[in-house]
Amino acid sequence: MSMNETMEPAPRAALRNLALARCVLAPESVALIGASDDPAKTAGRPLRFIRQAGYEGRIYPINPNRDVVQGERAWPRVADLPEIPEHAFILTPTEAAIDALEACADFGIPVATILAAGFSETGPDGEAREQRVRDIVARTGIRVLGPSGLGMVNVRTKLALTANAAFAEPDLPVGGVFVASHSGSMIGGLLSRGKAKGVGFAGLVSVGNEVDLSVGEICAATLDDPAITGYMLFLETLRHADKLRAFALAAAERGKPVVAYKLGRSAAAAELAVSHTGALAGEDDVADAFLKDCGMARVDTLEAFLESLPLLRQMPLPKPQEAARVPRVAVVTTTGGGAAMVVDQLGVRGVDVVQPREATFARLASAGVNVSSGRIVDLTLAGTRYDVMSAALRVLRTAPEFDLVIAVAGSSARFAPELVVRPIIDSGMDDPTLLPLAAFVVPEAPQALLRLTEAGVPCFRTPEACADAIAAAASRRAPKPFAPRAAPGKNDTGHGQAILLDELTAYEQLAQVGVQHAPATAIPVDESTPLPEALPYPLAVKVLSGRLPHKTDVGGVELGIADAAQLRAATARIVENVRRHEPDVPVERVLVQPMAKGLGEALIGYRLDPQVGPVVMLAAGGVYTELYRDRSLRLAPVDLDEARAMVAEVKGLRALEGYRGKPRGDLDALARTVVAMSRLATLSDVCVVEAEVNPVMVKREGEGVLAVDALVRIRK
Amino acid sequence: MSMNETMEPAPRAALRNLALARCVLAPESVALIGASDDPAKTAGRPLRFIRQAGYEGRIYPINPNRDVVQGERAWPRVADLPEIPEHAFILTPTEAAIDALEACADFGIPVATILAAGFSETGPDGEAREQRVRDIVARTGIRVLGPSGLGMVNVRTKLALTANAAFAEPDLPVGGVFVASHSGSMIGGLLSRGKAKGVGFAGLVSVGNEVDLSVGEICAATLDDPAITGYMLFLETLRHADKLRAFALAAAERGKPVVAYKLGRSAAAAELAVSHTGALAGEDDVADAFLKDCGMARVDTLEAFLESLPLLRQMPLPKPQEAARVPRVAVVTTTGGGAAMVVDQLGVRGVDVVQPREATFARLASAGVNVSSGRIVDLTLAGTRYDVMSAALRVLRTAPEFDLVIAVAGSSARFAPELVVRPIIDSGMDDPTLLPLAAFVVPEAPQALLRLTEAGVPCFRTPEACADAIAAAASRRAPKPFAPRAAPGKNDTGHGQAILLDELTAYEQLAQVGVQHAPATAIPVDESTPLPEALPYPLAVKVLSGRLPHKTDVGGVELGIADAAQLRAATARIVENVRRHEPDVPVERVLVQPMAKGLGEALIGYRLDPQVGPVVMLAAGGVYTELYRDRSLRLAPVDLDEARAMVAEVKGLRALEGYRGKPRGDLDALARTVVAMSRLATLSDVCVVEAEVNPVMVKREGEGVLAVDALVRIRK
Repeated sequence: MSMNETMEPAPRAALRNLALARCVLAPESVALIGASDDPAKTAGRPLRFIRQAGYEGRIYPINPNRDVVQGERAWPRVADLPEIPEHAFILTPTEAAIDALEACADFGIPVATILAAGFSETGPDGEAREQRVRDIVARTGIRVLGPSGLGMVNVRTKLALTANAAFAEPDLPVGGVFVASHSGSMIGGLLSRGKAKGVGFAGLVSVGNEVDLSVGEICAATLDDPAITGYMLFLETLRHADKLRAFALAAAERGKPVVAYKLGRSAAAAELAVSHTGALAGEDDVADAFLKDCGMARVDTLEAFLESLPLLRQMPLPKPQEAARVPRVAVVTTTGGGAAMVVDQLGVRGVDVVQPREATFARLASAGVNVSSGRIVDLTLAGTRYDVMSAALRVLRTAPEFDLVIAVAGSSARFAPELVVRPIIDSGMDDPTLLPLAAFVVPEAPQALLRLTEAGVPCFRTPEACADAIAAAASRRAPKPFAPRAAPGKNDTGHGQAILLDELTAYEQLAQVGVQHAPATAIPVDESTPLPEALPYPLAVKVLSGRLPHKTDVGGVELGIADAAQLRAATARIVENVRRHEPDVPVERVLVQPMAKGLGEALIGYRLDPQVGPVVMLAAGGVYTELYRDRSLRLAPVDLDEARAMVAEVKGLRALEGYRGKPRGDLDALARTVVAMSRLATLSDVCVVEAEVNPVMVKREGEGVLAVDALVRIRK
Repeated sequence: MSMNETMEPAPRAALRNLALARCVLAPESVALIGASDDPAKTAGRPLRFIRQAGYEGRIYPINPNRDVVQGERAWPRVADLPEIPEHAFILTPTEAAIDALEACADFGIPVATILAAGFSETGPDGEAREQRVRDIVARTGIRVLGPSGLGMVNVRTKLALTANAAFAEPDLPVGGVFVASHSGSMIGGLLSRGKAKGVGFAGLVSVGNEVDLSVGEICAATLDDPAITGYMLFLETLRHADKLRAFALAAAERGKPVVAYKLGRSAAAAELAVSHTGALAGEDDVADAFLKDCGMARVDTLEAFLESLPLLRQMPLPKPQEAARVPRVAVVTTTGGGAAMVVDQLGVRGVDVVQPREATFARLASAGVNVSSGRIVDLTLAGTRYDVMSAALRVLRTAPEFDLVIAVAGSSARFAPELVVRPIIDSGMDDPTLLPLAAFVVPEAPQALLRLTEAGVPCFRTPEACADAIAAAASRRAPKPFAPRAAPGKNDTGHGQAILLDELTAYEQLAQVGVQHAPATAIPVDESTPLPEALPYPLAVKVLSGRLPHKTDVGGVELGIADAAQLRAATARIVENVRRHEPDVPVERVLVQPMAKGLGEALIGYRLDPQVGPVVMLAAGGVYTELYRDRSLRLAPVDLDEARAMVAEVKGLRALEGYRGKPRGDLDALARTVVAMSRLATLSDVCVVEAEVNPVMVKREGEGVLAVDALVRIRK
C-alpha cells in the first residue's frame, strides 16, 4: 500500500461516514470563519441570523483577533476547535478564503461554503484562484459550495447559514419546497414571496459559481428526503448539465416535480448572465430544450415560479416514449370576465379551453347545474352555492374530454372564502380517479388562497401565472434516460480540436446513420483526367475540400451546368476563385451533383453543445428561418415520434402540409432524417461535434428527402 | 312651432340642465327600481351597499309589493316619487326592465342603468328588446347604461350603485383612477386588487352591452374632473370606437393617461367575447393598432394593468408627427438577480437596457458610487445606504443616454423600507428636468410598495408587470386627430353593399392615390380583334372581371406567355376555365402585363373596419406572411414616418434590407405606397371598403415598387 492509500485525507474520510446532504444542508456543527463582531456587517450576519432562527446545533465563530464575537466565545483558528465541524462558512475576503479553505481541509471539515467573490467572473487572476480551489477539492476531497454564494438555509433545522439579509426574519416558513439558485439575492426574494403565498420551504441554497457542488448534485443529495416534495431552480446558466440531468431524471422517477425559472429569454439577459457569473451562458433555445427534455417545467413568470409546484404534482409527466400533449382544459367559473382572462392567456400559450360535450352538459343538468352551452361553464352567481359548485366540479372532474379543470372564483372568494373555497377543497384533491384541478382567484383574496394552498389545491393569483404554469407543465417531456456516448468535454466547445470533413466524406459519414443525399461524384480538376461519361446534367459543381466550410463565400459553387464544356469552365473558375480567396488551400477535386428540386427546403443541424451535450435542430430552410427564428430543438438522440413533433413545431414547414391546395411534402421522411442525424450522438467509433445538412430538399409525399449539402466536423 | 319643439321630453330637458357626468356618475338622488327586501338577493344588494358605503344623497326604493324595503320607505311606482331622481337603477328582470325604463323616461329621469341580461347576446328576441330600448332612448333622450351591466360606483360620493358583491366592503379606496369595464365582475376584482396595492379610485363603471352610453362617452364625460388622474379600461370589444377614439384624443390633450386590458389576444378568447357580449369581436390585431394609434397603453398582464398608470403619467406620449420610440432604460440595483429578471423581461419585449456611457460612470465615481462597468449599475449592498442610492439616482436621472431609470430594490426593502424607499422618493418625482423613474421591488415588501405608491413612484411587484408596463407605454403612438371621411357604417361590414372593381379599374382607382402598378393592357377575348403589336412579352394573362375576386381559383391566370400565338391559346384556356367554374360570369377581356420581377414581394391591404374604420396593413408577401402572421397595422391614413415604422416592423422585409450581402430593396418606395394606400381613407368622391395590392414587387433601391395585382371594393 502506498502512502496515498493509507493516508486518506480527512474530509474524504468524513464524507464516507456522513452523507453529503447532511454535511451540506443539515450539519450539526458549523464553523463561521471570519465571523465579525458587528452583527450588521456581512461577515457578522450569519451568526446573528443563526441565533435568531434558533438553530440547535453547535456554532464555532473563528476570529483571530477576538476571543468573543457577538457575545459568544470565538476561536482564533480552525485547528483550535474542540471538534471537527461538519460545515464551515468562510466569510473572509477572496485570498484569505482560499487559505481558510485549505485550513478547513487540513482539519478534516468535509464541506465549506465560500462567500467571497473574485473568482472566474473577474478574469484570468480569478480563474487562477478558482483553479486553486479545485486543486484543494481534488487533493483533499473537501466539498465546496460557492464561491460567490450567499450560503444555505435549512428552514427545518433553523440553520440560516447565509449573509442574505432576507433571513433576518423570524418564523421562516417550513414546508416541502427545496430551492437552488444561481442568484444569491433571489433566495431571499423567493422566501418572502413564498411566505406570503403560504409556500413552505425545506431549504434554500445559493450555489454561487458552482466550482464544485452544483445545483444538480445538491438537489440530488436531497431526493430521498421524504419531506421534500418539489424543487424550484433559479438558473442563470446550465453549468454541470450532466448532474442536473441526472437529478431531473431521478426526481421524475420519484414523482417529485421540478420547476425552473431561467434567465436568458432575451439575448440581453444572456449577456448579463455572462458578466455576472463568469459562465458561458448557454444559448437559451438549447437550454429550453434541455430543461423540457429533462422533464422540468420552465416557467416565464416569477409568480408562476412560486405557484406552480402544486399543479405539477397533480399533472403527471409523460411516460417514457409518450409524447408531450397539450392538455384539454375545462373552465368553470362564477365570473365571466375572470374566466375569459384565463382562456385568453391559455390561448396565447397554445393551450385550448375545450367546450364540454353534450353528454357532460346533460350530466351537469341532471346534477342540478343549469348553464348555457359554451366554451366555459359559467355558473354565474349560482356558483357561489356550495352544492352547485360541488356538483359542477364532480361532473367536470370525471368528464373524459378533459385533462385538467380550472375553477375561477369571483368576488365571493374575498367576502365568503368558506363558501367558494370549500367545494373546491372538498372535491377531493387526493383522489387519483379525478382529473387534476386548479383555481384562479379573481379578487384580492388572501384568506381564500391560503386555505386553498394549505389544502394542496394549485391556485393562482393572476391569469398569466395560471396559464404560464399550465403551459409549462404541458411542455415537459418524458426525461430521457439515455446517456449519450458523445458527452461534451469540460470547457471544450469541440471546435478547436475538430476537423472538417470534405463534403463527400461528410455524406459518407451521414449515410452511416441513415441520411440520404443527392448522388455526388468527385471529379479531379486536372483536365488531363477524362470526365465521366453519363453525368446527370444539369449539375451543381462545388469545390471539394475539408478546409473550406463556406464554399459559396470563396466562389466555390456553380449551378445549372448543362454539359461537359460548361463543367470544365466552371471547374476552372472555381479553382481560380479559391486560389484568389484562399491561396493556401489546394483544390484537387470538385463535387458534381444533379440539380435537385423539391417542394421545399429544410435544415437539420446537430451539435455537441459544450454545456448540455448532443442536440439536434430542425428548421425550415432559407432566409426566413433566421428572420423568424423558426426552429425546433431537442437533446439527441430522438425517436421518430419526437422527430414528428419537431416537424410539427416548425411553422414554416406547414407550407409543405398541403397548405392552400399545394402538394404535400414528404415530412415523414424529413422526420426520419432528423432521427438519423440525431443518431450521431450514439456513434462509438467517431465523435461528431457538429453536423448540418442544408438544404434538405423535401420532395412529394412518398418520394423522400435528399440532403444536397453537408457539413461534418469530427473530433480528432 | 310644432308640437315636437314645444314638448321636449323631460329626460332630454333634464340633461340640458344637468351635466351627463353628474347624472351618470354623481347623482344626488337615485331610484332603485325593483329593490328587494332581501339584502342578500341581487336586487337587494344595491340598497345595502349604498347604505353601507355611506352615500349622502336621496335614495328611493321602488317596489309595488311593499311599503318598506330593508327597513326603508318604498314607493310603488316611479310616478309616485316626490322628486325626479337623477339616476334610476333598474333591477327588475328583462321584460319588466324595459317597461321600467319607459316609466323612468315618462317621469323625466335623465339616466337609467339596466342590470338585466337577455338582450342582443341572446339572439333575435333579445335583439328586438334591445331595439325597444334604443327607441325609448331616441324618443325621450333618456340615457341608458347597460343593459347587462353591474352598475356604477362613485367612490368619492360613496354611491355603490351596483349589484357586484365586491362592494359589500367598507372603506372603498378613494383616489384618482376611473375604471370602465365591459365585464361587470371585473370592477370588483380591480377594486380589491387596487386597494391592496394602494390604488385609489374615483369611480368604476360596468358598461354592459353599451346600447347607449359607451366606454368612450362615459369616460369623456369625466375628463374635466381635476381629481381624475387616469383611466383603466377593461375591454372585451371595440364598440363605439369613434367615441373611444375621441375620448382618447381628449385625454391625451389633458395629459391623462389611459391603460387598456383587452381580451382577445388569442382567437379562443375573441370567440368567447362574442358569445359573452353579443358584439362582433374585432380581430385583435386591428384592436391593437387602434388602441396604440389612440395613444392608449395596452398591457398584457393583469398586474401591469393595475400598476402602470403612475408610470404612464411620467412617460409622455409622443407628440403629433413624432414617432413612437423604444425607451433607453437604465437599471440601478442592489440585487443582481432581481435586476437580471427585469432586463430579461424587457429584452423579450424589445426594450433594451442600455449600458451607461463612460462619462456617466465617471460622474457616478465622483459622486462616490463605485460600480463595475456593465449594463446594469449594481450597487450591491452599498446601495442600501441612503447617500449611495441617492447619488446614483441623481446621476442616472440626468444622464442624456437614457429615457427612463428603473431602481431595483432587494431584501432590505422588506426589512428597512425607509432605507431603500426614501432615496427613491426623495429623488424628486415632480421634477420635470429629471428622467422618469420606476421601481421594481424583489422581495415581498408591502410597506415599501405602499410608501412608493403614495409618493407617486411607479412601482411594480413582478419583473413581468414592470416590463409589460414599460413596453406598453413605449408602444403608444401620438393620437391621430384626423377624422377620416370613410367612417364605418353602423353594423355594416361594407361587403354586402359593396361592388368589386375589375383589376384595370382597380389600378386606376389606386393610381389616383399614388399606387404604381405594372403596365396593364386589356385585350378582348374575341379573336376577330387584332392583338396590339408591341406587347412586352413574356406576359402574364389574367381574366378581367369585376365578378371574379379569386382569379387563380377559376383558372383565370396564365404566366410566362412568350408570343402572340401563346397569348391566343392562353386566352382561350382562360375563357374555357372560367366558363367551367363560373358559367354565369361572361368573359369579354383579359388583362396582359409584362412578367414583373423584383427582389422580393410585399402585400399592402386597406380595409374599412366595421368597428374602428379605415386601417392599412403591410405584410411580407407569400405563404410565410400567413404562417408567421408577420404584418403591421395602423389606422389610416398614415404619414411617411409611420409607414417607414411599419416597414421596420415586418420581419420578413428584413430580407430586403441588404440581408446577408444581398442587394437592398426599395423599401422607401414601399413605405410611400403604404402611405398612398392609406389615403383611400381620405377620398371624398368614393368610399373604398377594401383594397389590396398583392403582390407588390419590390425592386432594387431607387427603382421603386410595382403592384402586379390589385383588388378594390367600393361602396355603391
